[in-house]
Amino acid sequence: MTDQRRSDGSLRHLLTLADLNRDELEMLLERAQHHVRRRGDAAPRSDVLAGITVANLFTEPSTRTRVSFELAARRLGADVVNLEMQLSSRVKGESMLDTVFTLESLHVDVFVVRDAEAGVPALVADNVGPAVSVLSAGEAHLSHPTQGLLDVLTILQRKGSCEQLAVAIVGDIRHSRVARSAWQALRTLGVGELRLVAPPALMPAAEEFAGCRRYDSIDDGIRGVDVVMMLRIQRERFADADIPAGDAYFERYGLTPARLALAQRDAIVMHPQPMNRGVEIDSVVADGPQSVIRDQVTNGVAVRMAVLETLATRPAPRRG
Amino acid sequence: MTDQRRSDGSLRHLLTLADLNRDELEMLLERAQHHVRRRGDAAPRSDVLAGITVANLFTEPSTRTRVSFELAARRLGADVVNLEMQLSSRVKGESMLDTVFTLESLHVDVFVVRDAEAGVPALVADNVGPAVSVLSAGEAHLSHPTQGLLDVLTILQRKGSCEQLAVAIVGDIRHSRVARSAWQALRTLGVGELRLVAPPALMPAAEEFAGCRRYDSIDDGIRGVDVVMMLRIQRERFADADIPAGDAYFERYGLTPARLALAQRDAIVMHPQPMNRGVEIDSVVADGPQSVIRDQVTNGVAVRMAVLETLATRPAPRRG
Amino acid sequence: MTDQRRSDGSLRHLLTLADLNRDELEMLLERAQHHVRRRGDAAPRSDVLAGITVANLFTEPSTRTRVSFELAARRLGADVVNLEMQLSSRVKGESMLDTVFTLESLHVDVFVVRDAEAGVPALVADNVGPAVSVLSAGEAHLSHPTQGLLDVLTILQRKGSCEQLAVAIVGDIRHSRVARSAWQALRTLGVGELRLVAPPALMPAAEEFAGCRRYDSIDDGIRGVDVVMMLRIQRERFADADIPAGDAYFERYGLTPARLALAQRDAIVMHPQPMNRGVEIDSVVADGPQSVIRDQVTNGVAVRMAVLETLATRPAPRRG
Repeated sequence: MTDQRRSDGSLRHLLTLADLNRDELEMLLERAQHHVRRRGDAAPRSDVLAGITVANLFTEPSTRTRVSFELAARRLGADVVNLEMQLSSRVKGESMLDTVFTLESLHVDVFVVRDAEAGVPALVADNVGPAVSVLSAGEAHLSHPTQGLLDVLTILQRKGSCEQLAVAIVGDIRHSRVARSAWQALRTLGVGELRLVAPPALMPAAEEFAGCRRYDSIDDGIRGVDVVMMLRIQRERFADADIPAGDAYFERYGLTPARLALAQRDAIVMHPQPMNRGVEIDSVVADGPQSVIRDQVTNGVAVRMAVLETLATRPAPRRG
Repeated sequence: MTDQRRSDGSLRHLLTLADLNRDELEMLLERAQHHVRRRGDAAPRSDVLAGITVANLFTEPSTRTRVSFELAARRLGADVVNLEMQLSSRVKGESMLDTVFTLESLHVDVFVVRDAEAGVPALVADNVGPAVSVLSAGEAHLSHPTQGLLDVLTILQRKGSCEQLAVAIVGDIRHSRVARSAWQALRTLGVGELRLVAPPALMPAAEEFAGCRRYDSIDDGIRGVDVVMMLRIQRERFADADIPAGDAYFERYGLTPARLALAQRDAIVMHPQPMNRGVEIDSVVADGPQSVIRDQVTNGVAVRMAVLETLATRPAPRRG
Repeated sequence: MTDQRRSDGSLRHLLTLADLNRDELEMLLERAQHHVRRRGDAAPRSDVLAGITVANLFTEPSTRTRVSFELAARRLGADVVNLEMQLSSRVKGESMLDTVFTLESLHVDVFVVRDAEAGVPALVADNVGPAVSVLSAGEAHLSHPTQGLLDVLTILQRKGSCEQLAVAIVGDIRHSRVARSAWQALRTLGVGELRLVAPPALMPAAEEFAGCRRYDSIDDGIRGVDVVMMLRIQRERFADADIPAGDAYFERYGLTPARLALAQRDAIVMHPQPMNRGVEIDSVVADGPQSVIRDQVTNGVAVRMAVLETLATRPAPRRG
């Protein structure tokens, strides 16, 4: 497994939250909170990464995440280049690494990598020189560390700490990098209780998400919780006969005001977006007073700024 | 209808020129003139929008207009992100607004919106917070306010004022946002006479363009005018049996040197580009001494700079 | 033929290396060397092109070359806009020039043009005003001047000078802009010996590459050389019955460790990338100690910085 740390113990890559300890998580969250501004206020700015070049290598279409990373890097003064190269599938392995070597030779300091295939961010991290950092922006169904951090930051802003909280993750957990990264962070921060709510066909394998209680019924699953994390359901899933489709999905697993009333009165509602309104979540809930979905977006830039300034080293300007 | 102004009367959005008064138009034009440079001179620069983030949401392909807005924003010191999201049609309404809310939560201060569907810029304007401004970069056949401003600026540079001028708009007026915005600006500035020249099938509805005289014959329509504004004809129109196609269109409505000779000797020729040379305009005219088509492009950046610095508010940097 | 120089003899465009004299080449190479940094060191930075706008007009997909030019321009402080307009084929001639005139009217100072069709960079250069420069980023099979410069710079860094060197270019020379630009630069710098190694069907016409000895056998061709420049073979070529395909190509013309051993012990191996590993080059060689392929990439940014700062004039900021 790729070591995310330098020999002095400092963070060099961020590929997963799985092995971050509580101090590391809290340091990143504290730095991120430092960059949070209210909507309508001026965006945070600094030049701490002036002279640094960040390459966004997004092989999946996801404009919003790309823009979030792009703005985070630019607001720290970094140069950003966007590439839509295909790293995976046909051009895998050596060809992919040639692209990475090329970018490294162009003095790219940080690679932000998003790929539908497992292992691509680590493959990049394993092959770049010691001055280069790799930040995963989403890897297969496995990991989305900045999303996990922004989710936890959003919870802490509203709830102060995790220890007493009951959190329910609802939806397509089996295929969700969001759920996995959130679980890793919440576990490390000592969350009181984590519940998984999903149709059996979308529940993760039994050996995953150790210690979480599993529910098929959303009513049972969100009863009394403090946080409801909804996930996006890909419409392709509805081709599976074991998964209720469309309206039936909404009827069985959609978050409605009536269901939300089963949670704590001050429970918050989260969603990583984009939302399928009327499929996994009712618009009344998505736009309601308990929704913190827009805070998640704002926190996303702050978290990405914090991670970028933590990972990126500033090489001394020497002559070759 | 969306109010383009703040409660103190200052301009917040620019979606249409229809309700701008003469003072507002003249203020924008004066600011724009301030940013005009000769070709070959250095581009205008300032940092008045440093810290501001501008998002170009272009859902129609139009690289040149996008680059014009991008350079205008950057030359004022703003950060610019380009998005090619589909706002309209299938993903309309709430999904579209989720994209807008996301960008607003990322601290985007100005949305530059171009969409083939009516109402999209206003829908964005109606849903963003009070610190955010929306600038239409082209809306259906209805409005293209910065184009209207740059057209008027180009006329004023050559003719000093509008009051004594006869202006002919020639071509596909029915489907033209350019014609509508030009008409709105010229009317407010008290243009002497505005003529519409088009095949009947491309003439706007009778209740539109009040006070303009209509001509089927281009020879009659441009006789004695000071300004000839040619419009682009989409080749798709030629599928309509009532519209002369290709060479026949050029023969009936194309601007040739012989026809231009019917206008005033010092008449100027305009075109919003891209041109169909040999269809609506003869190359000899497009590249001739009376053409101000390239000035229009230069004025476009200046106008967009003026509008951006007028609309964008600079929120005080506060901590959230 | 387009004159690349201003009336005072200074370089204004860079479309080809064919008519650059030795002093000009050496001046560019010396400037480029000034911008070279070691991998892992901070990228070179300056603000010598602040206020300058560079437009990348790439009509062929080539993300890596585009990023190299983009970073070169930005690291000199220039503004960069990327356009993917089709300049060639259907929209040729006047329509293409309208695009160029538009960009010039937007105060673009430098056009970086890449096009699969011969003559496009020169057509742009012939039609822009005197303050505008044009830099070819690859033209048909004819010219790729910054690639030629970076190839020569890489050779000089390792070998000190060209006069005593034997250089072999291996592969699809007939269709290679890289080979032609390298040959032009090496010839001007007085290279000792230049050999061409290719299947007869991929050898250039007899009147080209004057003074080069031609080899069908790679073993004969690279025996004793100091520099082996491998070229990329497009897989489409294998449709030609006269060209050995795939494995057969590798067997006949692929650079293996055994073949490389026929060259000088300290011979260097070059490739313009992207590589077809296992087709024209063995991975052991591509990644081996004699490979300078990654240096070529780093030198590419340095060369592009040197060319941009040489070509771009800084117009005095005047008011229009």
